Amino acid sequence: MNAPSQEPPITAERQRAIVAELRTVLPPHCLLSSEEDTRPYECDGLTAFRQLPLAVALPENEEQVVAVLKACRKLQVPIVPRGAGTGLSGGAMPVAEGIVLSTAKMSRIVAIDAHARTATVQPGVRNLAISEAAASHQLYYAPDPSSQIACTIGGNIAENAGGVHCLKYGLTLHNVLRVRMVTADGDVVELGSTAPDAAGLDLLAVFIGSEGMLGVVTEATVKLTPKPSLARVVMASFDDVVRGADAVADVISAGMIPAGLEMMDRTSARMVEPFVCAGYDTDAAAILLCESDGLPEEVEEEISRMRAVLERSGATAIAVSRDEAERMRFWSGRKNAFPAAGRISPDYYCMDGTIPRRKLAEVLTGIEALAQQYQLRCANVFHAGDGNLHPLILFDANQPGEFERAEKFGEAILSLCVAAGGTITGEHGVGVEKLDSMCEQFTVEEIAAFIAVKRAFDPAQQLNPNKAIPTLDRCAQYGKRKVDGGRFRFAQYARHYG
Amino acid sequence: MNAPSQEPPITAERQRAIVAELRTVLPPHCLLSSEEDTRPYECDGLTAFRQLPLAVALPENEEQVVAVLKACRKLQVPIVPRGAGTGLSGGAMPVAEGIVLSTAKMSRIVAIDAHARTATVQPGVRNLAISEAAASHQLYYAPDPSSQIACTIGGNIAENAGGVHCLKYGLTLHNVLRVRMVTADGDVVELGSTAPDAAGLDLLAVFIGSEGMLGVVTEATVKLTPKPSLARVVMASFDDVVRGADAVADVISAGMIPAGLEMMDRTSARMVEPFVCAGYDTDAAAILLCESDGLPEEVEEEISRMRAVLERSGATAIAVSRDEAERMRFWSGRKNAFPAAGRISPDYYCMDGTIPRRKLAEVLTGIEALAQQYQLRCANVFHAGDGNLHPLILFDANQPGEFERAEKFGEAILSLCVAAGGTITGEHGVGVEKLDSMCEQFTVEEIAAFIAVKRAFDPAQQLNPNKAIPTLDRCAQYGKRKVDGGRFRFAQYARHYG
Repeated sequence: MNAPSQEPPITAERQRAIVAELRTVLPPHCLLSSEEDTRPYECDGLTAFRQLPLAVALPENEEQVVAVLKACRKLQVPIVPRGAGTGLSGGAMPVAEGIVLSTAKMSRIVAIDAHARTATVQPGVRNLAISEAAASHQLYYAPDPSSQIACTIGGNIAENAGGVHCLKYGLTLHNVLRVRMVTADGDVVELGSTAPDAAGLDLLAVFIGSEGMLGVVTEATVKLTPKPSLARVVMASFDDVVRGADAVADVISAGMIPAGLEMMDRTSARMVEPFVCAGYDTDAAAILLCESDGLPEEVEEEISRMRAVLERSGATAIAVSRDEAERMRFWSGRKNAFPAAGRISPDYYCMDGTIPRRKLAEVLTGIEALAQQYQLRCANVFHAGDGNLHPLILFDANQPGEFERAEKFGEAILSLCVAAGGTITGEHGVGVEKLDSMCEQFTVEEIAAFIAVKRAFDPAQQLNPNKAIPTLDRCAQYGKRKVDGGRFRFAQYARHYG
Repeated sequence: MNAPSQEPPITAERQRAIVAELRTVLPPHCLLSSEEDTRPYECDGLTAFRQLPLAVALPENEEQVVAVLKACRKLQVPIVPRGAGTGLSGGAMPVAEGIVLSTAKMSRIVAIDAHARTATVQPGVRNLAISEAAASHQLYYAPDPSSQIACTIGGNIAENAGGVHCLKYGLTLHNVLRVRMVTADGDVVELGSTAPDAAGLDLLAVFIGSEGMLGVVTEATVKLTPKPSLARVVMASFDDVVRGADAVADVISAGMIPAGLEMMDRTSARMVEPFVCAGYDTDAAAILLCESDGLPEEVEEEISRMRAVLERSGATAIAVSRDEAERMRFWSGRKNAFPAAGRISPDYYCMDGTIPRRKLAEVLTGIEALAQQYQLRCANVFHAGDGNLHPLILFDANQPGEFERAEKFGEAILSLCVAAGGTITGEHGVGVEKLDSMCEQFTVEEIAAFIAVKRAFDPAQQLNPNKAIPTLDRCAQYGKRKVDGGRFRFAQYARHYG
């Protein structure tokens, strides 16, 4: 998380010209340009970095999105697309000389097709609103990021959002069938289809998770999943974190795919228990939550198999939710881990890395050693089944040097993930936060391929510039890379792609 | 399937220069240039189109692939990558002024990781050989194209190959975790990872199914699936094709995902029965094969549910395989439908389109009407569960005009698929065969996006030129397109992207 480079200043005259041009294509209530109005858009969930945009466009329909993008193309104005602004890696952080394009006003559910089990929605529809609209058909939208009450499908697509139930039901990528989007040139393009396979290059997959750099979503068709008639969760305590991590591998090796498989360490459990009263075993070194859903007889059978595996793996205590209220209570602590961190520490920094499941114990031990080294507490909550870690680094920004130490600690955790054969983000994206870590994860040729594809969609590099993909110059300065060659090779390539 | 444009002639002098250059980077036994030696490479499974390449390179390792691509880059020689040559859309058809790069000599299984359930293999490893190598761990590689005994994983990746079991286990896309490939510039790039999620743009998905236009695979890591302990198949007869098609929808609506769900019409059943003696009901208008696999108790329960649904849907006869030998016998007809066509017709043309499952009955009725119109027989065998049709058009090329009629009939079937909300290829790819149908499926902006991404990987357009993605000029001439605008708009864009 290095501070983004200083934005070049923009003259008042140019700002006026841009706003005047946008006024010709948007109704007055769809354009914000006073500092008072644009202030709420200065950052997303990564609040350490803030920047006022020169204006905020809030188009109400696809035609207006096209018109805004064409106007920006003409005037060479950068555009930062924004969903609900709940992202955690600064993907929606504005640039000073550019506008924010918010899809908040495009919040209509276009159609629910219960027979085909699909919903077609505008980008500003909230994640949870899709499930609410489909509830009468006993269907729901499966990916469930913690922010699902607020975050929107447009932002979910940009970040390839995950959630607690993604182990069984997949990420956003696996639940979006079709996207209609507008390119930087103002062209409308449909990617994917509701047919079982699509001809042509699979541009839908490359678009999902592209962090607003390839186009602006104007409509999406998502898969709906039948609501399971029953869900129960097993809560198991372990007196050793490594044993808990091994139990995760044991559950999966036994051939089960739990609807959720989450882990919290003692620091996390003690952090949330006073806050939510979930009934967590605060003496345990680690707590596992392992959920089964489906038909009642399937769930009963799977729960007893899960129980047996967890006992064999050395669980010191096991509880199974008896009803829906208790199931929600068991989950409440996991789902409220982030807000709870604010109660025991002035500040916290939530990391997001992914590792092969079998490396869980090894990486957790490594994080513990790093906590010692950086002299900071770290609470571990994570999607254990996916190998997706969310270490919460606790610090106090008022203590000189603590923020910088937290940043270094975070970067070291990501290096640990890369070294374990994992990746630097599971579901929060790269944004402005992890540009340097990208240089560590990928070779110069791989980053050059990302840049080339970005340019194929957006030759003038106006859409969300300087996010998600580092320039090769930056990597050359950072000086680390996956294979050999390092600084020199990045610098050499930077002449072509930088 | 229009004949590709005439290749420009190549001088003997240039041919000698190219072969001489390739000799400096390949051992003698890895380069074929005499007509006798290159003849076997003049076509793939789409034998109607043939073209001798100027040479065939058979590199034995990644370094040689890099060297061949760099040599071709220097001399501006087009490269057509080739797996086993079993493709059905002409994707591996050579170009006169270019070389074929066959991965046949790179056929080593690099590693089987039974714990992580992955296999890492070179591109020339045969599909079935992966399962054979993993068999001792009770694992197998799930996608099973009909050609699986011969086709290779490199070709499967190029075509995003499917198969009978893809309804439950997914296409190649869903079973390949990581690809190592060489770009047209000779850069080695890794796409995807064995970690649960990958940072950066999802270039693996765009690469899979890109028909050899973005790079040459040198290694792939694929997912292995635990072998089910039992598989049984229900064979159901219907006295009406539409009723059979509706039964497919009924099975899926009942919440089951069969391991295979295939349909044959009467023409197909009568065609294969004398050939394989599978015990098919040749009086039935349609036969459904519906498979269940998993643990014995799960299979028994699912088979009885399948039986109940099929009876309710109007099956006139039902048989369930009693043992593995009978299961293989029930499948033998489906798997041998293509060779069997050769016994009742001098020639056949296998189409490949995909439609939403609920449109099956409607499209089948439409195909019947087209058969009348074009006065040709058509046997329908297909992956019904996926909505992936494989109409076999039977004709006699020795009868004047029949081949052309078969082509028109095939094109009309694809138009029917597009109109039903489907796509022009399920698993055979576009190749040279369906370039015109691409113009019908996609808008000018969508094809421009494909072209831009192709150029991002291969600016000089040397890798498999004129395959899979039509030029906008071609579409302008073809004159049909998905939305409005037609010929003029394609022609207008062609100036930029053509």
